[in-house]
Amino acid sequence: MSVAIIVSTHGHTAKQLVRTTEMLVGKKENVSYINFYSDENTDILIKKFESNIKRFEDISGLLFLVDIWGGSPFNAANRIIQKISQSYNIQEKVCIITGVNIPMLISIFFSLEESDMNFQKIVQNALKSGRDEIKLHPEIQKEEKKTQKETQFDEFRSISSEKAKKNMNIVLVRIDDRLIHGQVATRWTKDTRINRIIIINDSISEDKVRCMLLKQVSPPGINAHVVSIDKFIRVYSNPKYSKDRVMLLFTNPTDVLEIVRRGIEISSINIGGMSYKEGKQQVHDSISIDQKDVESFMELSRSGIELEIRKITSDKKTDMVRLIKSKFK
Amino acid sequence: MSVAIIVSTHGHTAKQLVRTTEMLVGKKENVSYINFYSDENTDILIKKFESNIKRFEDISGLLFLVDIWGGSPFNAANRIIQKISQSYNIQEKVCIITGVNIPMLISIFFSLEESDMNFQKIVQNALKSGRDEIKLHPEIQKEEKKTQKETQFDEFRSISSEKAKKNMNIVLVRIDDRLIHGQVATRWTKDTRINRIIIINDSISEDKVRCMLLKQVSPPGINAHVVSIDKFIRVYSNPKYSKDRVMLLFTNPTDVLEIVRRGIEISSINIGGMSYKEGKQQVHDSISIDQKDVESFMELSRSGIELEIRKITSDKKTDMVRLIKSKFK
Repeated sequence: MSVAIIVSTHGHTAKQLVRTTEMLVGKKENVSYINFYSDENTDILIKKFESNIKRFEDISGLLFLVDIWGGSPFNAANRIIQKISQSYNIQEKVCIITGVNIPMLISIFFSLEESDMNFQKIVQNALKSGRDEIKLHPEIQKEEKKTQKETQFDEFRSISSEKAKKNMNIVLVRIDDRLIHGQVATRWTKDTRINRIIIINDSISEDKVRCMLLKQVSPPGINAHVVSIDKFIRVYSNPKYSKDRVMLLFTNPTDVLEIVRRGIEISSINIGGMSYKEGKQQVHDSISIDQKDVESFMELSRSGIELEIRKITSDKKTDMVRLIKSKFK
Repeated sequence: MSVAIIVSTHGHTAKQLVRTTEMLVGKKENVSYINFYSDENTDILIKKFESNIKRFEDISGLLFLVDIWGGSPFNAANRIIQKISQSYNIQEKVCIITGVNIPMLISIFFSLEESDMNFQKIVQNALKSGRDEIKLHPEIQKEEKKTQKETQFDEFRSISSEKAKKNMNIVLVRIDDRLIHGQVATRWTKDTRINRIIIINDSISEDKVRCMLLKQVSPPGINAHVVSIDKFIRVYSNPKYSKDRVMLLFTNPTDVLEIVRRGIEISSINIGGMSYKEGKQQVHDSISIDQKDVESFMELSRSGIELEIRKITSDKKTDMVRLIKSKFK
């Protein structure tokens, strides 16, 4: 038994809210959308809802997510709730949340994956995420926050000379030149249960503005750092970070190859995005590579490292080596 | 000088959020959207932002509304803010709000119409509406609330025998068989500054479930009632309501004609929506009428009452009589 979700708004927004969430965190069964067009009325909308609900099998709860209080999608959902409550005793398991936004949907998509989630918990999490993730940037307290993050970074800096006891726990190595962005900040961060993101890139680590921006955009509860290859090698064996779960982010395979050559052991590399530039050839949806990339990838593969392409965790893995062999003959 | 708004999200959601808001409350200049597709990167997005910003002339503030914290739309907007802050001293006038939803956009569209709105106020209102309009229905306190509304309705009922002193202040008469829905709950309620909606319909007034639902969906601060024609005539002249600003909502012109025949003075009728049913002919976007409707409309027109079609206040008025004459010869 599971919970069914129906997103409904005026116009085409409902569909796109679901599509955007799927783009960020992957598809979910039992999540559907109903657009409401200006030439329709509440009765038509109720019929659309009803035929949609019939498709769900064996559901234990029904949650409507609508745009505004008192709009037709809300009114139609409310009529459905009245009908259902008259027939079944499930008042506590059918409700509407207004003001639907992407953070609310992401929270729900994640909740649907948890085995210990009941309907009330899903609803409460959705309300909380929807509201709490409406944030202003820059905030008035901007300066304070920045200082705090800078301090964390300084700590990181100061420990590189301590004696190594146990190495860093690397959970994911990803090549994605968009660095910290939607898919990384949501889907990957959750699924890998990391608490630290380390971006390894010599030139970005020297660009102070970019470093500050990257640290600002790290998801809640996650520490982000930007370091050069040299500095990463120094901090890798620091015991202070042995209990952390770390994601390494690279912009290219040559940097990954460099840390492997310098003794960092990894077994798999996830390739999420390498954008097109002149001289590169597109080999996959959002992956373009040049001859240097090819050489580095092949060298990494020869070291026994898996090279798999996935934008988000639920995508099917595509083998990078096979792709290179078919495109670069 | 005015404030420019850029809505940006992963996928096609940004465009549809703007379209849905326009559908509800009308178009606004200086509100634009940037979709972000999965084959693009932050640099491309920054370029799209920059060419978009160039189109705005003489703006005093720039507000980005994005889907999630740390996503590419957020990151690109953040980079723009850094660039702008380096060139100009307008840090307080450029910012990002995450978790964009329709209530937030409606708040901003309304704020842009106010002459005394400054940037900080627009931002604070947007945050507040975005968060506060994320609501759960039915709430746990449902029963209490219902009792309160029922009491208000009983008051209304009890006063019809009091001696009339001054008549009800009718601000808008609207025919819309969707009754209280998105456009009515937002655009019309705001523009007419009403505090009471009276739905006049004999059969709906006898359907207790529907009455309860209609009262539930009334916008915040607005009292809604459903009454029969007889009851409306009785309460019309009650002095208790002489200070209220009232919207009358009808499903058809024949009911309006009836109250006019019984002495209620009105000068104009807004026609917002009459849905298609068998035997009706579509004469306009969301307006279908039959012979009985035609006769009532023509009779109302002969009494000197304006009959104008508009879905929302900012639409151009279409003359119903001219339309009837061209379609029913």
